[in-house]
Amino acid sequence: MTSILIVGAGAVGALFGSALARQGAQVAVVCRSDYDVVSREGYDIVSPLLGNHRFRPHAVFREVAECKTPPDYLVLTVKVLEGVDRAALIRPAVGPRTVIVLIENGVDIEAEIAAAFPENEILSGLALVGVGRSGPGQVNHQSLGQLNLGRYPNGSSPAAEHLAALFNGGGIGCRLTDNVVGARWQKAVWNATFNPISITGGTLDTAIMLGTPESTAFIQRAMEEVCAVAAAAGYPMPPKLIEQLIGSTRAIPPYHTSMAQDYRNGRPMEIEAILGNTVRAARRHGVGTPILETLYALAKMIERNVREAS
Amino acid sequence: MTSILIVGAGAVGALFGSALARQGAQVAVVCRSDYDVVSREGYDIVSPLLGNHRFRPHAVFREVAECKTPPDYLVLTVKVLEGVDRAALIRPAVGPRTVIVLIENGVDIEAEIAAAFPENEILSGLALVGVGRSGPGQVNHQSLGQLNLGRYPNGSSPAAEHLAALFNGGGIGCRLTDNVVGARWQKAVWNATFNPISITGGTLDTAIMLGTPESTAFIQRAMEEVCAVAAAAGYPMPPKLIEQLIGSTRAIPPYHTSMAQDYRNGRPMEIEAILGNTVRAARRHGVGTPILETLYALAKMIERNVREAS
Repeated sequence: MTSILIVGAGAVGALFGSALARQGAQVAVVCRSDYDVVSREGYDIVSPLLGNHRFRPHAVFREVAECKTPPDYLVLTVKVLEGVDRAALIRPAVGPRTVIVLIENGVDIEAEIAAAFPENEILSGLALVGVGRSGPGQVNHQSLGQLNLGRYPNGSSPAAEHLAALFNGGGIGCRLTDNVVGARWQKAVWNATFNPISITGGTLDTAIMLGTPESTAFIQRAMEEVCAVAAAAGYPMPPKLIEQLIGSTRAIPPYHTSMAQDYRNGRPMEIEAILGNTVRAARRHGVGTPILETLYALAKMIERNVREAS
Repeated sequence: MTSILIVGAGAVGALFGSALARQGAQVAVVCRSDYDVVSREGYDIVSPLLGNHRFRPHAVFREVAECKTPPDYLVLTVKVLEGVDRAALIRPAVGPRTVIVLIENGVDIEAEIAAAFPENEILSGLALVGVGRSGPGQVNHQSLGQLNLGRYPNGSSPAAEHLAALFNGGGIGCRLTDNVVGARWQKAVWNATFNPISITGGTLDTAIMLGTPESTAFIQRAMEEVCAVAAAAGYPMPPKLIEQLIGSTRAIPPYHTSMAQDYRNGRPMEIEAILGNTVRAARRHGVGTPILETLYALAKMIERNVREAS
């Protein structure tokens, strides 16, 4: 039986874990904030995709170190935040054959883990899912529910195929990609622009950000900077990507980005993973990104302002 | 007797008008929002510099057109806002010998008036004053109280000297400058950077904006862009200006810029006068200002967001 440990089992981790458990995997979770209720009752999941159900993990841990047997897969679903040493966090549960699966936002988020665990296979995944926590142990799945998964730095593997089969069987559409880093860059074209722009000025929704020809042209120029960085890093973006992203953003009702939601709720924002790493890649490759640099400087001030106000 | 009409007599106009009236000038005001109380009782002014006193204008008008005799000086103290035709606003009271005095923020704010009144002398003034409206007809003067005044586009004149003498006699220190456009650019180095940066992220005070070496370096780069535009426009900035501005900003307690205060209070912001005109001058002179362009694009989105929310 496949053993899986989900570290940082918030809404995404619980939802995805429940899908894997349905396929018979032995799914344990590390869950700090909602430990009491989850260890007693499991997760109460409301989901149009998987149905409303209760997910009782095979084991619930407060700390990674409580997991005494290294799992086949360690799935990391914590936010990538400055000052959080993810390698140290997972180390106690990583065995020599544990496959480390990163289901997290951002670009260049794998290198740190790859350097810390050079012998372990690493899978990198991009979740497309709208899911939140509506109370202790309560998971509210609102929309989508897909995963793009690939071996890091590229290619696939039997371990990736096996995990994808579990996800697909459990109801989460999982697409394997040979080029997961390129997929991350592609996602960053949207994320590294709309996200930081959305947290300036109270919080701006997508309709305001695309509200005028001038603001749309500005966002296009910002996206072109991300594309230039991606190309310099060896991942040229598809032609028409920017046009498509702006078109699809316009096509759906106005909404607030994940960073805007974090900002509003006083939660930590993934500025470094999403934008900081993009800017650092630009500097490394000698690509000028004045708009992204400006957004980055502003986002850091905003983050500091939130922290000092709280 | 010198006749003076103050158009847009809010806090600055009332305070400065009261100083001129003390010297025996016949000061009338156009005051729309507080008309009732001001026409009945005048202004109630609390000022450490001029003393607490009541200022009863020689006449109080609701509209410029009610002023039937063109004044010697027409002092415009309204905000410079997009969509407000200041030339049309003052035209009914401008006679052939009326000196038009612009006490307003921003760069390139005189050209529109000069084009509309090619025969009239124009004086341009930069107020350094902390003063606000604490209630209808109530003026609360908190700090400073100086004016930099010069003939537009440059030089001085007997009319400028006469007005400066009235201000100085009335308690408002007025310094004449031969290079008022250069003085506006110098002020813009601070205003076109700290102001728009301060309205991102809820509102940021000066301590947050200068809170880290990175944020300070960012503000320096933004200021360098303004200096490059000023130089291209024919107004090279003094060496060490940026260093001095940052040093003096650091030396006083953290505070919120005028734009941040307007933003917080839902009042119109002088984005075009302060930043838009700087960006347009940069484009005209072929100077690259990617940071200012980014700030401008963000400020316009923020402005639109405030407008749509209200």
